[in-house]
Amino acid sequence: MLVQKYKDMLSGKSVIRQLSEFATARGKEIGYGNVFDYSLGNPSVPVPKEFTDTMVDFLQHKNPMELHGYSPSLGITSVREKIAASLEKRFGIPYRAEHIFMASGAAGALAHAFRLVTKPEDEILTFAPFFPEYHPYVDLTGAVLKVVPADTKDFQINFAAFEEMLSPKTMAVLINTPNNPSGAVYSAATLKKLAGVLLAKSEEYGHDIYLISDEPYREIIFDGVEAPCVSSFYDNTIMCYSFSKSLSLPGERIGYVAINPACRDAKDMIQMCGQISRGIGHNCPPSVIQLAVAEVLEKTAELSVYETNMNILYKELKALGFQCVKPGGTFYIFPKALEEDAKVFCEKALKYDLVLVPSDTFGCPGYFRMAYCIDTEKVERSLEALRKFVASEY
Amino acid sequence: MLVQKYKDMLSGKSVIRQLSEFATARGKEIGYGNVFDYSLGNPSVPVPKEFTDTMVDFLQHKNPMELHGYSPSLGITSVREKIAASLEKRFGIPYRAEHIFMASGAAGALAHAFRLVTKPEDEILTFAPFFPEYHPYVDLTGAVLKVVPADTKDFQINFAAFEEMLSPKTMAVLINTPNNPSGAVYSAATLKKLAGVLLAKSEEYGHDIYLISDEPYREIIFDGVEAPCVSSFYDNTIMCYSFSKSLSLPGERIGYVAINPACRDAKDMIQMCGQISRGIGHNCPPSVIQLAVAEVLEKTAELSVYETNMNILYKELKALGFQCVKPGGTFYIFPKALEEDAKVFCEKALKYDLVLVPSDTFGCPGYFRMAYCIDTEKVERSLEALRKFVASEY
Repeated sequence: MLVQKYKDMLSGKSVIRQLSEFATARGKEIGYGNVFDYSLGNPSVPVPKEFTDTMVDFLQHKNPMELHGYSPSLGITSVREKIAASLEKRFGIPYRAEHIFMASGAAGALAHAFRLVTKPEDEILTFAPFFPEYHPYVDLTGAVLKVVPADTKDFQINFAAFEEMLSPKTMAVLINTPNNPSGAVYSAATLKKLAGVLLAKSEEYGHDIYLISDEPYREIIFDGVEAPCVSSFYDNTIMCYSFSKSLSLPGERIGYVAINPACRDAKDMIQMCGQISRGIGHNCPPSVIQLAVAEVLEKTAELSVYETNMNILYKELKALGFQCVKPGGTFYIFPKALEEDAKVFCEKALKYDLVLVPSDTFGCPGYFRMAYCIDTEKVERSLEALRKFVASEY
Repeated sequence: MLVQKYKDMLSGKSVIRQLSEFATARGKEIGYGNVFDYSLGNPSVPVPKEFTDTMVDFLQHKNPMELHGYSPSLGITSVREKIAASLEKRFGIPYRAEHIFMASGAAGALAHAFRLVTKPEDEILTFAPFFPEYHPYVDLTGAVLKVVPADTKDFQINFAAFEEMLSPKTMAVLINTPNNPSGAVYSAATLKKLAGVLLAKSEEYGHDIYLISDEPYREIIFDGVEAPCVSSFYDNTIMCYSFSKSLSLPGERIGYVAINPACRDAKDMIQMCGQISRGIGHNCPPSVIQLAVAEVLEKTAELSVYETNMNILYKELKALGFQCVKPGGTFYIFPKALEEDAKVFCEKALKYDLVLVPSDTFGCPGYFRMAYCIDTEKVERSLEALRKFVASEY
């Protein structure tokens, strides 16, 4: 007998995926260059040349049995050492290899983090707007994801709602800063206040509440924005990182879990990740990619295009009368729709070949997300469509 | 609070891992060339040159955003098409892309297969001797792995014990042919009889019993041995394959699930694998590796060294009086120890710098495994140590 819960999931189709499929199909009719496809969060700039050169060099000159051999279950030691050293240098936190677990992208890292600190029925709180995949990621472990309503003023944290939802069942709080979909970056004040609440509640409930910090957009920060290191505010922080966006290689599935060295049982937690792997078929990211990424830890793809695109869009959206918080990073912007039902709003936009994602699945109805990881030239051409759409429909 | 079940696992250390660590430590004392390390099943021949050339070519000439972009959640379509075509050509079963799910090695493939057809408390039967990792793989899903005692005559299937252990709770049967650790290859007669039992019991219990076939050693078959395709005997077969051994790239985590097209709901099952992935943080094997492997589907590493090594060892073991079934494939041999307690036997062998793995964790006490994926020259040198060991101790 096939397992019903997975069968049942087949009927629910992702809105983002459907919109992306629409964009592809429409592209076949009018040329993809004429579809203003803001649906998918796929990096639009190439991997740094140094990564490619390193891969080629390793493939041509390293012993293939070492290069393609099994990675230890926690990751290749030299790679973990380099990542720890880089984190220490950058954030001043004394990470060592023993605090780093190599994971298959952020999804792999989160899969380990959730299992590390929650059992079925335990609760994880996250804040709207949030990445919709968090639901299957958490729900399928048996734990319960609860979503704290958004602070729509600036997409920081709605602390009043948060404190109401905390309970003795809360074992972890999951944050994503810089944030998909809002582009907001949590300020030092927000993180400090969050840490204070978590400390007080850990004491009150008699158990640690872990902070799981999902940081794939950490390197995409815009001019003048301060992006504090989450782990430096709260000891019990589990950092989940992916190189997908910073190095533009989302398909290569490479990231890591970094346990704050000040975390109780920090070393055990990394060893436990190795055990969790055995239950979920993880067995490390690819060896050659681990080794190559370790050589370019201080590099990023040419990320400045995202800020250029953001500035163009933000200016135009404001000029058109949209209510919109200026993103501090990522390649997303999250304006308020011009009518209450964002799905209807986005449906209408399609007539102008503007592919926008309604915000309902992000847990914050009435908004829409634009993923502006596309060519600047296309962003500029889309403005005319945006103006026409607003003028004709509103 | 950290989750206790993973913390508890930290105390249980893998015997194979401990022996491998011993070999490495001893190698530092006397030179690793002088340690006859038969502990680990790591391929000892390089990846085919065509794979490396393809990787380099792709890295140098493909659009990096396509090369390193997200893979669809079921795998890259063109890769799935090529694998299906290759399987059809080879085994005469009409596989199509829709029956193939790309997975991160055999561990990833099995993680999906188990979740596809078992819920917590359901039972999976497997046959001793078996790969010890099956225990955490299955146990951590909540299902129960039950081990049918070995047929030590030839390491085919002990059908009498099997039929006794089947019950309405049996949702799947897991086989591994060619087998780690015995090197046995299930014959057509064995597979036919197995299929007959499964069909009859499916009917009797009123639910399908799935056959999960773990086939990472499929390409390592010795001269004159017939290695029938498991899927051609039984419709409800879920094939789990890894390129780790055939292409000598275990660290790159690439394999697939192939659902027999005759399986009820075959297409749904592949779609369900995509849903299972969301719960375990899987998200596909690395894109560049998927694309490169698809170009060398008909190639293997130079695998003949394993047969050469097997023949040398088999001859010597028999000459020394060991009871031993001649392997039909893999790079393992599984002789009976010369005393009842294989752990004591293997302990004694260490004095002669022979690193052998006692069979207890393989579910078949009294035997030992030798992984002869090492240089032939070393196998030859090890014979003297083997002779000395037997002569002095027994």
